[in-house]
Order: sequence, then structure tokens, then C-alpha cells
Amino acid sequence: MYVVMVYDLEADRTHKALKLGRRYLTHVQNSVLEGEISEGDLATLRNEVEDLLKPGESTIIYELSSDTLLNRSVYGDDPTDEKRFL
Amino acid sequence: MYVVMVYDLEADRTHKALKLGRRYLTHVQNSVLEGEISEGDLATLRNEVEDLLKPGESTIIYELSSDTLLNRSVYGDDPTDEKRFL
Repeated sequence: MYVVMVYDLEADRTHKALKLGRRYLTHVQNSVLEGEISEGDLATLRNEVEDLLKPGESTIIYELSSDTLLNRSVYGDDPTDEKRFL
Repeated sequence: MYVVMVYDLEADRTHKALKLGRRYLTHVQNSVLEGEISEGDLATLRNEVEDLLKPGESTIIYELSSDTLLNRSVYGDDPTDEKRFL
């Protein structure tokens, strides 16, 4: 399946969510990762996200069947340019 | 259709993207809005996003058919608590 993960952590902890997400997904914009993932890896990712978050932080995981994402439009600078990410 | 919009603007300009997105969508997490939107409103939103962005900023709009979002999981604090948003 295909997932989009959007994390919202304290500024000095965002790198932890990015590092975690990158084990399974592709970083596509500040705080956003997406990609194909197996059900097993998704279950692992969900557990790891829950363990990571502190009070006041949150993460949303959108789960799509792989063929139902109708359109993905990027506006502005290409956010997959890794140089933009700290 | 259903859309998820994730914006990445300079810190002192994020409120502009939020204000724009809120005309059509629901704010669900820092930098993330989502909701049902008509094709006409989506076309307008796309134009407005393009006009808003400055170099180095970006926004992704995921467009789904309304019945294909398999699952939406929120981890951590309820991000729809508006008190968390500036």
C-alpha cells in the first residue's frame, strides 16, 4: 500500500521523525514522507511513531491503496531537493 | 473529491497558507489541511497556492477520490485542538 506520513514534533526533535520515516519512505517535503510500504513495515512504523512522540507532538499517517492516489501536485520549489532539508 | 494539503512556507508566512487553506479545508495538524472539495474550488485553491508561494517554499496537494482513503491514523496529541496552532 501507499502511505503519506506528516509529522509535527518539537523543532529540535524533527530529525528523529525524519530518520525513522526514512527507513521505509521517501522524504518529499519538510515534515512529509511518502511511499510504498508493506503491511508488516507499516505496522512496525506505527509502533515506532507511537514510541517516539512526546506530549504536544503528533503524526498523521494516511494509508491509500496503491492505485487510488488520483493526483499529487507540487507547487513551489521542488521539495525533493535534499539540500533544503536540515 | 478529498484532498490533503501540506504546506511548507517560511515561518513568518505560514499563517498565509493556513488562512488560504481554511477557506476550503479543515486544519488537522500544523501545516496540514484536508477535506472534501469541489473541482471548482480545488482549481481556485491551486491557483491561489501558486500565487502565494515564494522561492524556497512549497505545497503538496494530494487528491483522492472520496472513497479511497483507506485509513487515517493520528498519533500523539490530538492535532485538531486549535489551541495548539498559532
